[in-house]
Amino acid sequence: MTESRGASSGPLGIVAGSGGLPRRVIEACHDAGREVFVLALEGEADRSTVDGVPHAWCRIGAAARGFGLLRANAVTELVLAGAVHRPSLSALRPDWRAAKFFARVGYRALGDDGLLSAVVKELEREGFQVIGVDDLLEADALLPAGPLGQLQPDAQAAADIEHGLRLARALGALDVGQAVVVQQGLVLGVEAIEGSDGLLRRCGALRRAGPGGVLVKTAKPAQEQRVDRPTIGAHTVMLAAEAGLRGIAAEAGATLVLDRAEVIRAADRAGLFVVGVAAP
Amino acid sequence: MTESRGASSGPLGIVAGSGGLPRRVIEACHDAGREVFVLALEGEADRSTVDGVPHAWCRIGAAARGFGLLRANAVTELVLAGAVHRPSLSALRPDWRAAKFFARVGYRALGDDGLLSAVVKELEREGFQVIGVDDLLEADALLPAGPLGQLQPDAQAAADIEHGLRLARALGALDVGQAVVVQQGLVLGVEAIEGSDGLLRRCGALRRAGPGGVLVKTAKPAQEQRVDRPTIGAHTVMLAAEAGLRGIAAEAGATLVLDRAEVIRAADRAGLFVVGVAAP
Repeated sequence: MTESRGASSGPLGIVAGSGGLPRRVIEACHDAGREVFVLALEGEADRSTVDGVPHAWCRIGAAARGFGLLRANAVTELVLAGAVHRPSLSALRPDWRAAKFFARVGYRALGDDGLLSAVVKELEREGFQVIGVDDLLEADALLPAGPLGQLQPDAQAAADIEHGLRLARALGALDVGQAVVVQQGLVLGVEAIEGSDGLLRRCGALRRAGPGGVLVKTAKPAQEQRVDRPTIGAHTVMLAAEAGLRGIAAEAGATLVLDRAEVIRAADRAGLFVVGVAAP
Repeated sequence: MTESRGASSGPLGIVAGSGGLPRRVIEACHDAGREVFVLALEGEADRSTVDGVPHAWCRIGAAARGFGLLRANAVTELVLAGAVHRPSLSALRPDWRAAKFFARVGYRALGDDGLLSAVVKELEREGFQVIGVDDLLEADALLPAGPLGQLQPDAQAAADIEHGLRLARALGALDVGQAVVVQQGLVLGVEAIEGSDGLLRRCGALRRAGPGGVLVKTAKPAQEQRVDRPTIGAHTVMLAAEAGLRGIAAEAGATLVLDRAEVIRAADRAGLFVVGVAAP
């Protein structure tokens, strides 16, 4: 956490989705002596995320209640952390405040990556300052260029990575997903709403004989970097190993690594490479 | 089957992959009094496909043996029918003739849709005439524009179809897949190597609350129409219903319908629409 952030009064507001990232942000704040208030999204955040931390639970569609909770807890600075399953309009049940937002951006934004940018703009319009997760985590939270662990891609894997990068960027531009699995030039799977974990879980059954494939992740070209960075962790490495992959390639300087030391240990133990690559 | 086809001497060669299409082609030939010889691809064609029909089994990578079998059975005219799981190079185990082919088109073609065009060219170079499945089936084998059964898409479904068509065409241009599932603007899944059946099987668990989604299939822009048309059958309708979808939209004039009457019955019974739409 940089010094300048400490200047803000009141606790940091953390809007918490699923996965381990929100808890990491909470711990980074604790280490830096910064108070937090967590707005835990129902059906998304884990119970363990908010253990022993000031928090309230809130439905995604209950925007008025969410804004009220943040203000009542003196939050002026906000971070959005963790994954959120995109709801359908029917599941969202928007309150008057959420409905007002959608009246402006259009309900079709629900299926659109532009939605996140619109949400950030809306939060800023309400007077909150929205910062990126990587401003709060340790300096090595972003994936550097080159291999993280002991292994490196061979020529076949490098060709698969190149193919995967080209595809992942094009798919990102279509606002579909940000990950693909490529094995010996064959596209085993493409991420949509199921997320990278879901993609990896089904690719094991689709693998072909011979050298295993590669998971390739990139940031979407239009991605709102403050709220939706591609993320990898030891969990990703384990799922990739279970799917018979040989490694993971992700966009250097744009991908969040959850606990780099743990990712390196998991990769070296499983015999996988994890490599930061430049976007095409 | 048109009259002009009857002029060709010798049996029609049918290179049979998986699914019900090869058997339909065999039956259409029987109805038209045309002899057939089936080259059944190991690991792909069903045993029931070749029941009571002159045939031989052949490994995909055993091109020399395949050519030999076709010639030994006096085949000069060929049709490729049914799906083929793309093998990795290791699984392919190419014989000298297949290796010669790949030496020309490059092994990377394995991951490329251009592969099918190259295979057709290679067959023609060997002196075979390759015809399209739809030249052999009844005149109503191609999906017409408009709804097939009693139901039609409503405004929400029409919006999902429009979104899906745009995506499916773009994905096709990337040589990934030719099908997507869209629900209320959300892209639930994108087809890659798992095929449309695999896509439908996983989309049930991904569905959101409210009106169900739509399966949208298009021909790839560069698709070799003689050998790899998008196909739907009663089986597709059943899987779509199980996934909680409200209907299927596919490219009119380019999609093969396996037994139209059966598809209509299945759709009306399950309460799904099946609609032929113009490509964007």
